[in-house]
Amino acid sequence: MKGINMIQLAKELGLSVSTVSKALGDSHEISAITKKRVIELAKKYKYKPNPFASNLRKKKGKQIAIIIPDIVNNFFSLVVDGIESITMAKNYDTFIYLTHESLEREKALLEHLENGLISGLIISVSSGKEGYGHFQEFYENTKLPMVFFDRVPDLLQFPKVISNNYDCTFDATLRLIKAGCKRPIFFSTTEPLFTNMERIRGFQAAIAHAGISFTDDMVVKCSDDMDYNYSILRKLFISKKRPDGVFASIEKFAISLYQVCKDLKVNIPRDLKVIGMTNLRTAALLSPPLSTISQPAFNMGKEAATLLLKMIEKKSYAAANDIIVLKNELTIRESMQS
Amino acid sequence: MKGINMIQLAKELGLSVSTVSKALGDSHEISAITKKRVIELAKKYKYKPNPFASNLRKKKGKQIAIIIPDIVNNFFSLVVDGIESITMAKNYDTFIYLTHESLEREKALLEHLENGLISGLIISVSSGKEGYGHFQEFYENTKLPMVFFDRVPDLLQFPKVISNNYDCTFDATLRLIKAGCKRPIFFSTTEPLFTNMERIRGFQAAIAHAGISFTDDMVVKCSDDMDYNYSILRKLFISKKRPDGVFASIEKFAISLYQVCKDLKVNIPRDLKVIGMTNLRTAALLSPPLSTISQPAFNMGKEAATLLLKMIEKKSYAAANDIIVLKNELTIRESMQS
Repeated sequence: MKGINMIQLAKELGLSVSTVSKALGDSHEISAITKKRVIELAKKYKYKPNPFASNLRKKKGKQIAIIIPDIVNNFFSLVVDGIESITMAKNYDTFIYLTHESLEREKALLEHLENGLISGLIISVSSGKEGYGHFQEFYENTKLPMVFFDRVPDLLQFPKVISNNYDCTFDATLRLIKAGCKRPIFFSTTEPLFTNMERIRGFQAAIAHAGISFTDDMVVKCSDDMDYNYSILRKLFISKKRPDGVFASIEKFAISLYQVCKDLKVNIPRDLKVIGMTNLRTAALLSPPLSTISQPAFNMGKEAATLLLKMIEKKSYAAANDIIVLKNELTIRESMQS
Repeated sequence: MKGINMIQLAKELGLSVSTVSKALGDSHEISAITKKRVIELAKKYKYKPNPFASNLRKKKGKQIAIIIPDIVNNFFSLVVDGIESITMAKNYDTFIYLTHESLEREKALLEHLENGLISGLIISVSSGKEGYGHFQEFYENTKLPMVFFDRVPDLLQFPKVISNNYDCTFDATLRLIKAGCKRPIFFSTTEPLFTNMERIRGFQAAIAHAGISFTDDMVVKCSDDMDYNYSILRKLFISKKRPDGVFASIEKFAISLYQVCKDLKVNIPRDLKVIGMTNLRTAALLSPPLSTISQPAFNMGKEAATLLLKMIEKKSYAAANDIIVLKNELTIRESMQS
């Protein structure tokens, strides 16, 4: 059974909770007589202060919702860790909500959160399919601070934390070409996400820069389903148009590709050069070690949380136009050697 | 701007929201005259039913909290996906809270959730350091259904979903010995978790079974910090007592070990045989492919969610003593070949 709490103590003494709290904290605002009464009753009931309870009172309403597509992808897990490294230090509670790439789920959640129990949101969108009107509407109804990261609603005026997707895809694609690829392929998501469009732009620009003529089949659409991806990649690699270089824009595409190459005995890097956008902890331990573009996931989370807390605590939306652009890191490993 | 909603319609008509809803749904409970009034006003304001709003009304209070240590570990990510495969189909909202292995955070979170806005909890504990009194207390205060998985409070009467840690560690350790290891080592967590204790028991039993005398230094304590683990494993592998076999009980221990072996050029499996407990998607693609014990993470999530929903919907705690034991899967790959 739980012991007596401060509310019960206050009731029995006919005092306010705040007075009891101050008396137990030996505050100079409380008379010696009242302190004595409080302490005696507290002793009688073996009252023990609960460090978490007082912490929680301070935290009232200090809750932040993190809305992300999934957590099996290492990128989002690391962003969450970055966010929580900031919010934990400032005594904010965070809870994570997964959309599983479903726009419907995302919309339903926003309606649900309109009740106003939270102080702010950090979001990476599920899809760009129908635009981002639901976020705008949510903001108009609640005026809650919102920060977007990575997959952002590019045309809306919300603060955003992104990374230099265009530049790094451009650079990496040129590196593939310099390593000997005549016809690199871009593995793309099916959703019209800002991140993906930036990467495709970078890819196309590099192709043009190298004097290769771009054709639509140089962008291969992969899905969220790894079995499906395995089967289309397998078909691609037993076809006559087998690519000699791949830019995998999503972690799971690179994993499926490695699996296909292993099964078909396609030698990486001799027959195929590969670079993947991923924060996979095992990239350097794969056979062969995978060249990667790593997004600064932990830092993206830190920046997004810092921006959000600034907005919450200043109660202002002055940061609405802030766009923080962080640098991705290119690491060349054996998978891309010429 | 948002269009008119059902509440506003009801207000203007002087009707209850429920009547308006039934009128729009052409219910036989509502008179023709009222239906006409409602539909006319709805047309005038271009009212559009919001499919999520009606869904949300049904969902009122259908919220489940998932409390887990972290999501960078693939095991927990997959369990969450398993849980949500069940809860999404039944229109429950789920929120994930990370304890980051902090007992304090876990306690604070429980106090926070005592407000009763949720219908139930699915939990994997952060630590067994101080026992599990806070869960018992939470239950006594709230009577909310709770299901534990994997890291469970073994001595408390809550429903639990676990996997056969003792048996599979016993089997895998014997396999290490049969593959030629004279002195296998167990990489352990520092927390007194039920899962870990079961695995150590299995390891010790296999050692005894093989006629090897167990010494305390056959259990090496790793921490939550990968840099720390790297440094202690490096020391271990440049020492005279270099192990010839390792059972890594946690995913990140296996990753650190592979990194150390790569850097020190310790040849796996020639000089060292390795098996890791992990759901790492890249296990088969590592150099060399890692032998694994995979917990049935997705199924554990499904089972835990199914049990919880049963308890919530029957409003009974009849399942309190249920313990569901699922089987782990042992996959031998090159890292363990003799």
